[in-house]
Amino acid sequence: MAQIQRFEVGPRMSQAVVHGDTIYLAGQVNNSAKDVTGQTSAVLEQIDTLLAAAGSSKERIVTATIYLTDIKTFSQMNAAWEAWVPKGATPARTTLEANLAAPEYLVEITVVAVK
Amino acid sequence: MAQIQRFEVGPRMSQAVVHGDTIYLAGQVNNSAKDVTGQTSAVLEQIDTLLAAAGSSKERIVTATIYLTDIKTFSQMNAAWEAWVPKGATPARTTLEANLAAPEYLVEITVVAVK
Amino acid sequence: MAQIQRFEVGPRMSQAVVHGDTIYLAGQVNNSAKDVTGQTSAVLEQIDTLLAAAGSSKERIVTATIYLTDIKTFSQMNAAWEAWVPKGATPARTTLEANLAAPEYLVEITVVAVK
Repeated sequence: MAQIQRFEVGPRMSQAVVHGDTIYLAGQVNNSAKDVTGQTSAVLEQIDTLLAAAGSSKERIVTATIYLTDIKTFSQMNAAWEAWVPKGATPARTTLEANLAAPEYLVEITVVAVK
Repeated sequence: MAQIQRFEVGPRMSQAVVHGDTIYLAGQVNNSAKDVTGQTSAVLEQIDTLLAAAGSSKERIVTATIYLTDIKTFSQMNAAWEAWVPKGATPARTTLEANLAAPEYLVEITVVAVK
Repeated sequence: MAQIQRFEVGPRMSQAVVHGDTIYLAGQVNNSAKDVTGQTSAVLEQIDTLLAAAGSSKERIVTATIYLTDIKTFSQMNAAWEAWVPKGATPARTTLEANLAAPEYLVEITVVAVK
């Protein structure tokens, strides 16, 4: 049976789950900023922290799904994303519009990375 | 070439696909109940059955994506989810609002698990 | 440290990322057609090309997520999907409605495949 390691285990979800070399993060949200660029930056910081805890980093993300409550904020999200994502080591990515768990969340990002 | 095993193979999709230790389930829906809590419970039962067939169980889910047609039913979905998800072995999770293939489906859940 | 291989590496994303046997494609869109069946066929061709570059093919897709800007086009998407997807080797699949990065995109498909 394959081993599973979980980080920040809560009653509904764990923030990171590791199986073999593969790290699955929970969808990250952060409403400390009121705008999409600020929220995206805060979310990406959370991803950095979780990946570090799980033994990885943003250079080793394989795929990302980005949810925006308003697709017209696409370029605002990308401003923060492009400042953060490592040149030459960008993940596969899908972006779509979707309402999120609470209306104050403007962006949610879910990534899969490897060790 | 890595081996792939498929379960409940239909013309559009298979309900479960196994590669190595990793099990990918199709998005599960069930309209036997009219409310989100009931539909979520039914969907989670289907997930139990598929995971058992593929050699896994809910303790070994690594990530889940939950789609709700109305995000205001978030707590109704969570009522069924929290009754079902194993304490201490919760997966990474992302929840978003989205219309699904047919209007009678109020919730859809897609999971990745390991053997 | 697990090795990662990237294809069509851009400043925001790579079109394909390979880790071990697993291939993650970016969400594929194509607006050369004005209708969903035509866009789906074009997207599926792009997937064929990317999978070939990464050492795989449509017979070896393990999971697919399909985003439609109008869920009422479900059967139009399926017309192209069923003409393309290999009988007996269908992937796990999830379909939902979502607005995409630009309004001219009617469908986006994200797949995970194995070598």
